Amino acid sequence: MRNLNQETITQAVIARLAQTPDARLKELMTSLVQHLHAFARETRLTEPEWQMGIEFLTAVGHKCSPTRQEFVLLSDVLGLSTLTVAMNHDKPAGCTESTVLGPFYVADAPRLPNGADLARGAPGQPCLVQGRVCALDGAAVAGAEVEFWQSDAEGRYDVQYEDLDEHRARGVLSSGSDGRFELRTVLALPYPVPVDGPVGQLLGATGGHPWRPAHMHFKISAPGYEPLTTHVYRQDDPYLDSDAVYGVRHSLIAPWVDDGQGMHRIEFDFVLQRRAL
Amino acid sequence: MRNLNQETITQAVIARLAQTPDARLKELMTSLVQHLHAFARETRLTEPEWQMGIEFLTAVGHKCSPTRQEFVLLSDVLGLSTLTVAMNHDKPAGCTESTVLGPFYVADAPRLPNGADLARGAPGQPCLVQGRVCALDGAAVAGAEVEFWQSDAEGRYDVQYEDLDEHRARGVLSSGSDGRFELRTVLALPYPVPVDGPVGQLLGATGGHPWRPAHMHFKISAPGYEPLTTHVYRQDDPYLDSDAVYGVRHSLIAPWVDDGQGMHRIEFDFVLQRRAL
Repeated sequence: MRNLNQETITQAVIARLAQTPDARLKELMTSLVQHLHAFARETRLTEPEWQMGIEFLTAVGHKCSPTRQEFVLLSDVLGLSTLTVAMNHDKPAGCTESTVLGPFYVADAPRLPNGADLARGAPGQPCLVQGRVCALDGAAVAGAEVEFWQSDAEGRYDVQYEDLDEHRARGVLSSGSDGRFELRTVLALPYPVPVDGPVGQLLGATGGHPWRPAHMHFKISAPGYEPLTTHVYRQDDPYLDSDAVYGVRHSLIAPWVDDGQGMHRIEFDFVLQRRAL
Repeated sequence: MRNLNQETITQAVIARLAQTPDARLKELMTSLVQHLHAFARETRLTEPEWQMGIEFLTAVGHKCSPTRQEFVLLSDVLGLSTLTVAMNHDKPAGCTESTVLGPFYVADAPRLPNGADLARGAPGQPCLVQGRVCALDGAAVAGAEVEFWQSDAEGRYDVQYEDLDEHRARGVLSSGSDGRFELRTVLALPYPVPVDGPVGQLLGATGGHPWRPAHMHFKISAPGYEPLTTHVYRQDDPYLDSDAVYGVRHSLIAPWVDDGQGMHRIEFDFVLQRRAL
């Protein structure tokens, strides 16, 4: 274990990891070390590049706060989030597909009654969202917890406003006995992922744009069903084919109907997968 | 670029990276994404594991400060630092070998005269370190900048003391016209890498011990020569074969001689590699 060189170091680290008591942690760390070293070897990583990597990860960490998850954003723009979601949600046809959580989910969103105005003053045109939570056989899922969040007409989530001490365009409600839910919000627009941090700099340096197509976030859970984390996208959005975080799925795109009186209406049903017994 | 699944996501990300203006950044990011995705695919990474990874990296970032580099420590215990150093310092035989920088280097160490007491009150037995900076042909390298840092008898570096506002057992001096340098310090002892952060928790969970063999850090630079970052280790140290950061090299081990009067003496010469013209 002394005098390790570029050929022997990987096996030395793996040999030490062999002592890991937890079998899964051993598997994860062994694979991680192999791939991390393979990356460094394949690219002949230089010391200044290693240093830049350390500084980049440190900056990502320092950008993380209770309301901003820059590592999630990094995972998103590297496609790791979409890969992980895809591997873990191989569902029966007909169930609503999952997509990425994104960096702006918060656990303490306000609980509001079904039908409530979740906008609570967020800037934007009014929008009515209705739908039904059901099982694959069409049975209503009553009392499902529907967590909702989205950005406003400024392209920002509530948690991105430094001086805002309440939640806007975000809330949790329960589906009714018929599985239906209804909420009022503002019209979501395309927006750029935050470019004021190191991940935004990386996106810029790799020539990628930061834009996401307009979408609303939903996280739906009910006893006996697999939890669902997903988006609803707007039909004909210009960024559907170049989403900065690779999250678009055909089945999650819906018409957002302008009623001609300044209000948009969106109808979307969520089909949950029953939890395996 | 919509409806990406676990098979197609990797190529989609790589296709987007193809726009990267800087060829080397494109190469690095493309390789990184391939290996990151291969890791996730090979392990069938679950969403809770992904979440744990996000939280771990965030905690590592939050532990980083101007005087504590937890990402460097992570790179060290994963063997990435040793791999990177080994790939980048393939030197002619006879040149002093490089090893890891470690997380406790700071750029603003005090400049002190050759022969000075660098301990400046650090706890520990007195120790005299002498040596010579020279070229491969034996020619003295005069005026080389010799940066030195080490932990004290408590196993801590100066920057690990929250209330200490000056540097101890750390300093920068210049080699004399004969290439020689001399410094007084305290006897370095084996110590554990910091286990009060997420990397320490990871080490614990993987069954590895956190100990490093006793060593002194040197970073030596002189015009016309490749900079050298290295350690000097103590002969017969119990951790030479199980260094937590994989940094030991035979050629960097020296006798640390007890003079029988409470003082240790260490003599070590540093042979620099001439910079390619």
